[in-house]
Amino acid sequence: MKTLIKDVHILSMDHDFSEVKNGFVLIEEERITKIGSRSELDSITIQVDQVIDGKNGLLIPGLINTHTHAGMIPFRSLGDDVPDRLRRFLFPLEQHMTKKLVRASSNYAIAEMLLSGVTTFCDMYYFENEVAESCKKMGIRALVGETIIDMPTCDSQSPSGGYEYCETFLKNWQNDPLVTPIIAPHAPNTNNPEILKKIVELSEKYNAPITMHVAEMTYEMAEFQEKYKQTPIEFLQTLGYFERDFILAHCIFATEKDLEIIASSNGKARVAHCIGANTKSAKGVAPIKKMLEKNIVVGLGTDGPSSGNTLDLFSQMRLFANMHKTHNQDRALFPAKEIVRLATLGGAETLGIADQVGSIEIGKKADLTLIETDSVNMFPIFDPYSAIVYSANASNVNSVWVNGRKLVSEKKMVEQGLKEIKETLYHEMANFVVEAKKL
Amino acid sequence: MKTLIKDVHILSMDHDFSEVKNGFVLIEEERITKIGSRSELDSITIQVDQVIDGKNGLLIPGLINTHTHAGMIPFRSLGDDVPDRLRRFLFPLEQHMTKKLVRASSNYAIAEMLLSGVTTFCDMYYFENEVAESCKKMGIRALVGETIIDMPTCDSQSPSGGYEYCETFLKNWQNDPLVTPIIAPHAPNTNNPEILKKIVELSEKYNAPITMHVAEMTYEMAEFQEKYKQTPIEFLQTLGYFERDFILAHCIFATEKDLEIIASSNGKARVAHCIGANTKSAKGVAPIKKMLEKNIVVGLGTDGPSSGNTLDLFSQMRLFANMHKTHNQDRALFPAKEIVRLATLGGAETLGIADQVGSIEIGKKADLTLIETDSVNMFPIFDPYSAIVYSANASNVNSVWVNGRKLVSEKKMVEQGLKEIKETLYHEMANFVVEAKKL
Repeated sequence: MKTLIKDVHILSMDHDFSEVKNGFVLIEEERITKIGSRSELDSITIQVDQVIDGKNGLLIPGLINTHTHAGMIPFRSLGDDVPDRLRRFLFPLEQHMTKKLVRASSNYAIAEMLLSGVTTFCDMYYFENEVAESCKKMGIRALVGETIIDMPTCDSQSPSGGYEYCETFLKNWQNDPLVTPIIAPHAPNTNNPEILKKIVELSEKYNAPITMHVAEMTYEMAEFQEKYKQTPIEFLQTLGYFERDFILAHCIFATEKDLEIIASSNGKARVAHCIGANTKSAKGVAPIKKMLEKNIVVGLGTDGPSSGNTLDLFSQMRLFANMHKTHNQDRALFPAKEIVRLATLGGAETLGIADQVGSIEIGKKADLTLIETDSVNMFPIFDPYSAIVYSANASNVNSVWVNGRKLVSEKKMVEQGLKEIKETLYHEMANFVVEAKKL
Repeated sequence: MKTLIKDVHILSMDHDFSEVKNGFVLIEEERITKIGSRSELDSITIQVDQVIDGKNGLLIPGLINTHTHAGMIPFRSLGDDVPDRLRRFLFPLEQHMTKKLVRASSNYAIAEMLLSGVTTFCDMYYFENEVAESCKKMGIRALVGETIIDMPTCDSQSPSGGYEYCETFLKNWQNDPLVTPIIAPHAPNTNNPEILKKIVELSEKYNAPITMHVAEMTYEMAEFQEKYKQTPIEFLQTLGYFERDFILAHCIFATEKDLEIIASSNGKARVAHCIGANTKSAKGVAPIKKMLEKNIVVGLGTDGPSSGNTLDLFSQMRLFANMHKTHNQDRALFPAKEIVRLATLGGAETLGIADQVGSIEIGKKADLTLIETDSVNMFPIFDPYSAIVYSANASNVNSVWVNGRKLVSEKKMVEQGLKEIKETLYHEMANFVVEAKKL
C-alpha cells in the first residue's frame, strides 16, 4: 500500500526543525519513504494507491500523549473543583469499574485521541489488557501498563495484585507492533518499599519501562520527608529506578537535587508533564524550564479525562505556553516551535520510541497528523507553530495516520463508528452512574 | 417571526443559575418570550415560524467578549514570543492599516466570534466606523470605540486625532439597536493629561461609556510612579474617570488601593479581564479573586487576535480556571459555573447592558448560543458547566442567535459566506504582508 500526501506544509519536527512549504510525503506500508517539495514531486513518477490532497494544511508528526488513563472517561466532569477529589470521588468509584467498562472507555478515549491528532499514548490504569486490546482494534500506538497499588482494586482483591497482572501482561504483549507493555506502580506513597523494589526487578527481567506518578502531591512529599528524610525521587533512586527506563509523570514538586538525579540518569529517566491537570487541580507548575536546561527529556501529557477533562494536546500546548511564560515572567521563553517539539519528538523521546516516531523523517513509522487551515481560527498564518499552539484546537485535525494506516479522514473515524462506541460506553456506564450520583 | 428552540438543557445564567434540563425557549422578534420544560411545552399550543431541535445540547446566553480589536486579524501569529512586540511589530505595522483593511478584518473577526458563540463584543481600534458598519452588516451586538492616542495613527495625521473621530462617531451612532458608540483612549501613558481630561467631558456630553487599557504594562506603572507618585488608576480618579461608565481592560497591576477606587465607584467602573493575552505575554495574572471579593464587576475578554491569537471565550474560560486556581493555590476556587457566569452575565454587566442581555430570561434580547454535545469531547456530562469550561472548544458551537436573528446554524454562517469574507481579507492584506515581512 502506497499513499501520497501532497500540497501540505510539512513541519518535520526533526532536530533541525526542517520544513517543506509545499511538500509531499510518501508512505509505503507502515513507513515514510519519501519527503520532498512540489517541484520534486512534479519531476518524478510514482505509482500510488491513494493520493491525499493536503489543501495547504499543516502536516506534523502524530502528537504524543505521554500520560493518561484511557479507562477513566466515565469520570469526566464529575466532582471537578472539589478538594481532595482523588479520595472523595475517584478511589470510591473505581471499585465499580469493570473489565467491560474499561474496554468501552478505552475505545472511546482512543477515538477521542485519534480525532485530536494523537497517534501514541502512554497509559496506566486497571484491566490494562483491555486497553491493549482496544489499541490493537483501534490501530493506535501505545505504551500500556497495569497499575500496581497497595490496596484492593477493581481488578484485584489483594493489595498489590497488579504486580502479578503486570507480569502476565508483560509476557503476553512482547513484540507487538503497536502495544509496548510497561509496568505502572501508582505512586511512591501508594506502594510499600518491598513491592517498589520488586518492580525494579520485574523491569530488569522483562526489560520493561516503568511509569509512575511522582512528586505530584504535597502529602506525598511530606510523607517521604517524615518517614525517610528524603524526597520520593531520592528514595526511588536508592531502589534503582534511575537505572531503568523510567517515565516520571508530573514531578511538580521536584527539587533541585531531584532534577540532578533525573539528569544524571543520562536519559533513562524522562518526564511526562501534564500542565492542564496539574494546574486545574491547583497543584502547581512543574519546573520544566530547569529540566530542559539540564537536558532532561520532557513530553506532554493530558493526564486522565477526569483530571484534565480532555485527551487533546492542543489545549495542553496552549496552557503550557501561557503557564510557563507567566510562571517564569518571560514572554520569549518557550517559543511556539519548542512547544510543538515537546508534543511530538519530545513525547517520543520521553516514551523511548524516538527511533520509530516523533518526527517526519524517511524510515520512520508513518504516524502523521494533518491540521487543516480552512477554519476561521487558522488565518492568517505567518508562523505555523504559533497557529498550532495559540490558535488551533482539536477540531482542526483533519486526517490521522498511525503506522501507515489512515484512521481519521475529514475529521471522522475511518473504520470505527464513534456513535456505536459512545452507545456501548453509555450502556456500560449504567451502574457507574448510579453509584456516582450517590456521592 | 417566532422561533421555538426545544430539547435543550437551558443554563440561564440568571442570578439563581436557574436551569431547565429538557427545556424550550420561545423567541418572538428580538426577544425571549417564553421559557419552560418539555412537559409544559407539550401542554400548550404555539404557532411558530421555525422549530429548532436542540438535540440535548446546552443552550446558554451568548458569550460576551469584553475587550478586543476586531481590526487586528492581519497581525495574528506574527512576532509572537518576541519581547516588546507592541513597539517592534504592532505600532510600526499599524501605519499600514487602511479603512478597507479594517473593514475586511472586522467582518472576519465577527464571523470568528459568531462561530465561537460570541454575541456581543467591546471593540477599540482605528477606523471604528468600519467596525460599526461591519457589526450592522454581520448582525452582531457591540460597543465600539475609536482609539485616542497621542501620536499620528493610520486614520489621523495629527496626534490625538481620534478625539475628533470619536465625537463624530458618537453623534452618528446614537440609538442604534446593535452598536453602542463609546470612547476609547488607548492607555493612561499614551495620552497626555489634557486630552485625558477632555475625554471625560466628551463622555459627559454624550453620556458615552469609556474603555481604556489600564494597569497593563510595567513601564506604565513605573512612569506614573515617577511622574505623579500615583498609580494610573489613582491618576485617572483625579480626572473624574470613576464617575463615568468606565470599562477598564486588563488591570493586571492594580494595587489594593486601586481596587478600592474601582470598588467605590459603585459599579460605574468595571473590569475586562483578558487572561489569555495577559499570560501569553507573561505580564501576569490580574487580581480577579480580590476584585470579586470587593464586588467589582468582571467580564472576560480575548484581547485582539494579535495578543491572544483567538477571539473565542472557551479558550479563555479554560485558561481562567487553570490560571486562577493555580495562582491562588485553591482548586475549589472559581468553580466552572462561576466562570461561565463571568463569560456571560458578568460580561453583560461589565459592558453595562445586563438589562438587555447576558442571561436567558423572559423579556431579554434573544442572544443565544447552542453548544452541541455530540462531539467526542463532550461526553459524559455530569456537570454541564464543567463540560463548557474544561472540555468544550469553539468548534462545539452549533447555532447562534443575536437579537432574535439566527446567524450561525450547524456550525456555519447563515447569511454571510466565510470563504468570501476570507478572500476579501486576503486581498486587502497584500501590502500589509509585504511590510510585515520586512520586520
